[in-house]
Amino acid sequence: MSVDAKHARLPYRGIQPELKQLLAERFGEAFTTADAIREQHGRGEGYHQSFDPDAVLFAQSAEQVSAVVKLCAEHRTPIIPYGAGTSLEGNFAALAGGLTLDLSQMDRIIAVNSEDMDCTIQPGVTRIQLNEYLRDTGLFFPVDPGATATIGGMAATRASGTNAVRYGTMRENVIALEVVLADGRIVRTARRARKSAAGYDLTRLFVGSEGTLGIITEITLKLHGIPEASAVAVCPFDSLEGAVKTVIQMIQMGIPIARVELLDRAQMRALNLWSKTQHAERDTLFVEFHGSEAGIAEQIEMFKALAVDNGGRDPVWASSPEERSRLWKARHEALYASMALRPGSRPWTTDVCVPISRLAECILQTSADIEASSMTATMVGHVGDGNFHVVFLIDPNRPEDFVEASRLNDRLVARAQAMEGTCTGEHGIGWGKIDALEAELSEGVAVMRSIKRTLDPDNILNPGKIFRL
Amino acid sequence: MSVDAKHARLPYRGIQPELKQLLAERFGEAFTTADAIREQHGRGEGYHQSFDPDAVLFAQSAEQVSAVVKLCAEHRTPIIPYGAGTSLEGNFAALAGGLTLDLSQMDRIIAVNSEDMDCTIQPGVTRIQLNEYLRDTGLFFPVDPGATATIGGMAATRASGTNAVRYGTMRENVIALEVVLADGRIVRTARRARKSAAGYDLTRLFVGSEGTLGIITEITLKLHGIPEASAVAVCPFDSLEGAVKTVIQMIQMGIPIARVELLDRAQMRALNLWSKTQHAERDTLFVEFHGSEAGIAEQIEMFKALAVDNGGRDPVWASSPEERSRLWKARHEALYASMALRPGSRPWTTDVCVPISRLAECILQTSADIEASSMTATMVGHVGDGNFHVVFLIDPNRPEDFVEASRLNDRLVARAQAMEGTCTGEHGIGWGKIDALEAELSEGVAVMRSIKRTLDPDNILNPGKIFRL
Repeated sequence: MSVDAKHARLPYRGIQPELKQLLAERFGEAFTTADAIREQHGRGEGYHQSFDPDAVLFAQSAEQVSAVVKLCAEHRTPIIPYGAGTSLEGNFAALAGGLTLDLSQMDRIIAVNSEDMDCTIQPGVTRIQLNEYLRDTGLFFPVDPGATATIGGMAATRASGTNAVRYGTMRENVIALEVVLADGRIVRTARRARKSAAGYDLTRLFVGSEGTLGIITEITLKLHGIPEASAVAVCPFDSLEGAVKTVIQMIQMGIPIARVELLDRAQMRALNLWSKTQHAERDTLFVEFHGSEAGIAEQIEMFKALAVDNGGRDPVWASSPEERSRLWKARHEALYASMALRPGSRPWTTDVCVPISRLAECILQTSADIEASSMTATMVGHVGDGNFHVVFLIDPNRPEDFVEASRLNDRLVARAQAMEGTCTGEHGIGWGKIDALEAELSEGVAVMRSIKRTLDPDNILNPGKIFRL
Repeated sequence: MSVDAKHARLPYRGIQPELKQLLAERFGEAFTTADAIREQHGRGEGYHQSFDPDAVLFAQSAEQVSAVVKLCAEHRTPIIPYGAGTSLEGNFAALAGGLTLDLSQMDRIIAVNSEDMDCTIQPGVTRIQLNEYLRDTGLFFPVDPGATATIGGMAATRASGTNAVRYGTMRENVIALEVVLADGRIVRTARRARKSAAGYDLTRLFVGSEGTLGIITEITLKLHGIPEASAVAVCPFDSLEGAVKTVIQMIQMGIPIARVELLDRAQMRALNLWSKTQHAERDTLFVEFHGSEAGIAEQIEMFKALAVDNGGRDPVWASSPEERSRLWKARHEALYASMALRPGSRPWTTDVCVPISRLAECILQTSADIEASSMTATMVGHVGDGNFHVVFLIDPNRPEDFVEASRLNDRLVARAQAMEGTCTGEHGIGWGKIDALEAELSEGVAVMRSIKRTLDPDNILNPGKIFRL
């Protein structure tokens, strides 16, 4: 139903009967053409139209992935890697048909090296599974997109989340990858050392390439020490500018904020309705600090002083795990709360990222844009990074909602880009933001295309994503 | 005089008289074929044989760089970008002759955005120049290789230094680049937003590509707040293992060390001789903490407790700027002190990086290797990253010294790689470590070659570096 799906569809290149037979013989029940499974693998969590693959194969090992890719390469059949199916820009739509390679059963944690604070895992491990496994080691993996994504998918889309301001995104937290290329070669991108100046940064080339250059089959990640103590504050502000200014000043002073989320007034209103809470319906910061008890006490004092100077009012604090969870619950339920504003709606979640000095301006202009339209929408920001999300609430039965959301989204992207920002801070391009990327980095996109053509000359790996060839 | 220079040299492709005339006409005095200048631009600070270019051009703008590249591309003439000439692996040797493009006069600081904590500069700005410029802003740029390198060169070689454990390397600190490609196109790799999931990570592709994929003409960098307070400790240990274990535990506990340098016994002896100091001649940590006064006091207590448990003795502390400088002076003079161990010698400085759990073992085996040979050498480590340097002291008149240093270096690289480490943590490949990289990531090097062939089909950009084509 999305407005531009017709531009996304590619000429059909399905699975030839001969290849279908080969795959069925070789992989038995791991290979399926069942409708329900194909449909499930064609449908994202975003607003995008579904494009179902012709078949789905559940891979068990890098060697299998390599064998499948070789067979598909011989037949020039598209292969689309798939993790948890939680991406938001149609990143795994089978735009030309073909085979979806589901990696979720490759979910082994291969090694955890506590002294080195790293681990090596298969791509189907989810972030939640990994952190449960790590619980007794004193370590954790911080990158936390909202969804229960697989780490492979998170690497492929260069995901981040609420902790990025302190711990970085997938870009900073992947040490090395094993990747299967379009001709079936299995390649390691780097060694396990934390630092390297050894040739081109292949790791970073594959992180964020959305399965268009290779299929990730193993990942070595940085881990971090679980902090001795944590504290959370929820602080409403008189103005959005005041909230953003507080964050800018905290970062300039080197206060090591672990998380800092901004929920706008509309979002706070939605939360109160949904969770029956009594939060002030104002632009609000959710802040988390990690450190020693004494360190946190100091950080809290500094935050309070800055917040008061910038129109922050009556912050609520929590340091016990239960209270912290209770406060964060409001943030975690933001999406559901938004959806409840318009019962029966589906969310179209978009994101942009701007230099933080422009963030307040960008959010306020976007807010005005939404208010001037018929659209219901809320905003949540990873404000420390200048990254924010808009959730458009769309009635699936009203095509005009898609048209309007699309118009507002285009204006949002153009606004962010005019402020030296980017069309996506953490969701990736998929096929939903191809034109946005072209507008952002046209000569750069030409370089991306050259690399794609070299590494995947027949365009079999997740075709039609990031750019048009 | 280096042992394998004969493998590095490429078939000569000098500057044709016609091109020489064109460049002279167009660029006047900025273009020169004077012997002294050519020689200066062929000679690195490393142990490598010089390879002089046929001419040198001092560029003033991206448009000039683009014009020069287009002219050279028409004539298939090699172009070698050059910053401060401080790289260590022959990274700017003119292996096939050609034109060296000196970017040191492109040294303008274009913009500093304090609220966003970033700046945009030309590639010829040195890290020292940048930090002097920033002095009154409360911000600084942390990446500090030993030499007075240009930021362009540091980006091209993915440099780091003593602050990387806290602030990251060039990989983490470059936000965006402007690059001139092999056909003269001027490309921006990213916007100024801190985070982006917009397509392939072109920024990271060019960072560390050593001028083989493009010539960097503008750089946007992250800046950091100057900490409220700093403190430095020098702490000798009973054993190298104890020193490394202390660092591992500090990192696991999340103590935000700003710098942690390990100097081995041989290096401490050299320092005492050179600086007439009375340091204990034992394996020694130099540690620096940044933060608030209270935060630092807490970090010092935690460090002391861990150090004592691991055989640390009588640490010397300093917090005033003068005392801190005095203590760090010993570290900064390590190279000169080493050279004084063998008057008249030249240093061959190599580096490797291993997972930190293997660091003590790797250093001890290397130390035993050196003691069993005729070679004089010292070691210094950025221990928080698992990265360390060996300085071989070579008599330029003794070819057997090169042979022996080369043998020890090969063994060092193989040892680091066997421990899942890399052949270089921060110096890059140049032509000195081509075989080492091949051994480390052979299939990966094939991918690098594909990318090089696509973006520079005539191999005109810094040919013969990182890999053989």
